[in-house]
Amino acid sequence: MSDTRPKVQPYTASTKDFGSGKASPRDFLERCLAKVDAREDDVLAFAATNFSAARAAADASSARWRDGCPLSPIDGMPVGVKDVIETADMPTGMGSPLYDGWCPGYDSASVHALREAGAVIVGKTVTTEFAASEPGPTRNPWDVARTPGGSSSGSAAGVAAGFFSAALGTQVIGSILRPSSYCGVIGYKPTFGSINRGGSHDYMSQSSQGVIAASLEDCWHCAWEISQRCGGDPGYGGIEGPSALPKSPGPKSVIVLETSGWAEATEEAKDNFQAVVEDLRRAGICIVTRKDNSDVDAAEVAVLDAMPVSRLINAWESRWPLNTYRDHDASKLSKAMLDRSYEAEAMSLDDYRKAIARRAEIRTKYAGLSAHGDCCITLAASAAAPEGLRSTGSALFAVTSSVLGAPSLSLPVMQESKLPLGLQVIGFDNRDAAAFAAAHAILSHMDAARAIRA
Amino acid sequence: MSDTRPKVQPYTASTKDFGSGKASPRDFLERCLAKVDAREDDVLAFAATNFSAARAAADASSARWRDGCPLSPIDGMPVGVKDVIETADMPTGMGSPLYDGWCPGYDSASVHALREAGAVIVGKTVTTEFAASEPGPTRNPWDVARTPGGSSSGSAAGVAAGFFSAALGTQVIGSILRPSSYCGVIGYKPTFGSINRGGSHDYMSQSSQGVIAASLEDCWHCAWEISQRCGGDPGYGGIEGPSALPKSPGPKSVIVLETSGWAEATEEAKDNFQAVVEDLRRAGICIVTRKDNSDVDAAEVAVLDAMPVSRLINAWESRWPLNTYRDHDASKLSKAMLDRSYEAEAMSLDDYRKAIARRAEIRTKYAGLSAHGDCCITLAASAAAPEGLRSTGSALFAVTSSVLGAPSLSLPVMQESKLPLGLQVIGFDNRDAAAFAAAHAILSHMDAARAIRA
Repeated sequence: MSDTRPKVQPYTASTKDFGSGKASPRDFLERCLAKVDAREDDVLAFAATNFSAARAAADASSARWRDGCPLSPIDGMPVGVKDVIETADMPTGMGSPLYDGWCPGYDSASVHALREAGAVIVGKTVTTEFAASEPGPTRNPWDVARTPGGSSSGSAAGVAAGFFSAALGTQVIGSILRPSSYCGVIGYKPTFGSINRGGSHDYMSQSSQGVIAASLEDCWHCAWEISQRCGGDPGYGGIEGPSALPKSPGPKSVIVLETSGWAEATEEAKDNFQAVVEDLRRAGICIVTRKDNSDVDAAEVAVLDAMPVSRLINAWESRWPLNTYRDHDASKLSKAMLDRSYEAEAMSLDDYRKAIARRAEIRTKYAGLSAHGDCCITLAASAAAPEGLRSTGSALFAVTSSVLGAPSLSLPVMQESKLPLGLQVIGFDNRDAAAFAAAHAILSHMDAARAIRA
Repeated sequence: MSDTRPKVQPYTASTKDFGSGKASPRDFLERCLAKVDAREDDVLAFAATNFSAARAAADASSARWRDGCPLSPIDGMPVGVKDVIETADMPTGMGSPLYDGWCPGYDSASVHALREAGAVIVGKTVTTEFAASEPGPTRNPWDVARTPGGSSSGSAAGVAAGFFSAALGTQVIGSILRPSSYCGVIGYKPTFGSINRGGSHDYMSQSSQGVIAASLEDCWHCAWEISQRCGGDPGYGGIEGPSALPKSPGPKSVIVLETSGWAEATEEAKDNFQAVVEDLRRAGICIVTRKDNSDVDAAEVAVLDAMPVSRLINAWESRWPLNTYRDHDASKLSKAMLDRSYEAEAMSLDDYRKAIARRAEIRTKYAGLSAHGDCCITLAASAAAPEGLRSTGSALFAVTSSVLGAPSLSLPVMQESKLPLGLQVIGFDNRDAAAFAAAHAILSHMDAARAIRA
């Protein structure tokens, strides 16, 4: 394990400083860039940077705060952008030699919304190849011999290393929650469709764009301000909820899910999780499990299919563009991508129809749980970040909220062998604000429990 | 009016010739290219062509037919591709100077599917600017002083002029049905989501990719074969129905809709439409109108909002990318596009939420009609193609099926002042095959009625 445990400076502390004039967005950016100077050679979070543009944006933001007219609560917030999301001023490489140096010339919907809100775009963050499984170079800031997780590798690692306060990520299987768990930061995958994916190369039917951040407050502000300016995907109403971080009502009942991940979770991870559950129970929250409730048991059985169903759906939905990439230059696709393209071509449209019908059944079973609890919790990953950089780790826990399309968060409240491990909070469709209120309450209870034990 | 009434040679006639060896796909392509030679200077249907690639594809197809192993019923079919849809071997200009000569390097999902099925891609067809209202240069083959309609201008004009048997189009307001009506060809907008829009720049929540063709059979084959190979949009099951053109059951009951278009329809158009209704009644089909049925009346009232609701939805959904285009070079956007971008910025996310909620109400009212008839009919346009090239005409009739997301067809069965006028057939969600069966029956009844009168 690295000696340097990242000291993350949550942006929210600085917002007050911006308003009071104690510090400026430019000051804050320079502190971030100093961390980049100190650690980027080890962490390798960036695929591209544009620090001069970032400094100019921070200066403009500083002037707005000085004049008392910031554009939004995230005016001046340094943000990283996953490299499958298009930017006007930096290339978008998608972790693939096919797009090496590719400059679309325009901002994605979410990046444009960030700029409208005054956020400072620091750079593009490393993604696995096309946000799938082939890793990029990024290392985990907690231990550079370990994976940061994927596919939003650079976004999670960069937040953990303090390079920026928040970053855009995307998730179709586990690509926000898993790296957030491994890197000890907040990860948020909104309800499907809640952040406009225009100009983002994550087109699949479970894909969501989301936010990875140093604090829950940063995370909510960033996502909410984006959604207000570019909406959700066409046809979707964006993130529901107030502009301020939702803090109430906290959950009265929390449903504990095991999911298919339980079978591979380490004993330490399971013990850690059970300790969290006991803390919540002691805080007066009613805990509901499959043993107590037949609907929960039915949902547990249903979500056992999360990974195989998601893989089938993703394979068919990757048929294009992998077929046209392969036509262009098959030698520039990884073996994993080529294998997926062959898998896709072995499928028929009817196979796909069956898979999406099965997913709809799983979602129906899960939706029924809203009668029994305010949110669900489970692990965000089956263990802390594994050693090595050739695999981004298992997504068996994270895939559950992906297949459901439900809002979910990874909260950095546990440790395994002194490495971070996330608690996953899964909410219900379009009730992202309630999931954040539950997350806020859980974080508060955990802080209180730690204080009592300390 | 032009002296040269286009003589369209339906591809389906040739398929038999391909199978029997009487003619080859290369022979058929050369006949199309001879028509291009003769009329393209007047019609201006193409934004780009690649005839050498088309000839090579036709030769490969000819060999497959000769060897008795065609890839599909559309193997060898010459097809045009609307220039908002990406192609690996030709630029994609989107009718905008911002994308002049832009080469994405890859095929869209639908174009790749066409190639897999053996279709021969002849060229890119002129679109209005970003498939909206600013016209391109294309002229109506029936009278080159008249608009071909838009936004799929070159696709409809090219089919009418015999340049290709079918063409890809897109519709968000009236962009398939209107030019099909004006050019006297078959236009088909599938149920929302039924043809994968990957690599096609028509991202809005009412946008559908569809097919314009010389015959109903060509149209169905082309759309169905595409959908089998690339599916629908992610999360959608593609076009339901058999591989062969659905011919039965024909409709027992047909609902007549007036829509908001009725108020601006010419007397000749209304008389023509009433004559069609009478022909269908004489053929034994039960005709249901708002006078007979309160559900039909309620749906008529609901669809009066089709255009204003669609415009609001499109404006918000155009906020991006118009904002990033404007940042890049506002001088390269038309006044209409700039106006839309300002309209979008005057809207809030809440305004948009209200608009999509209203659309959902309209859809619910319409869905109730399936209890009273097998399909609906109305005009596809309020008149024949108007004179002049500065406007693509009114879409008041065509917008109805767009706001509904329902499958719809324009059938070239009427004339006004010796110019074509389409009959619109609107089906019900995911019952595209039933809409085609109804269209087939209507075309048969109209032929029979004409024969009796002749």
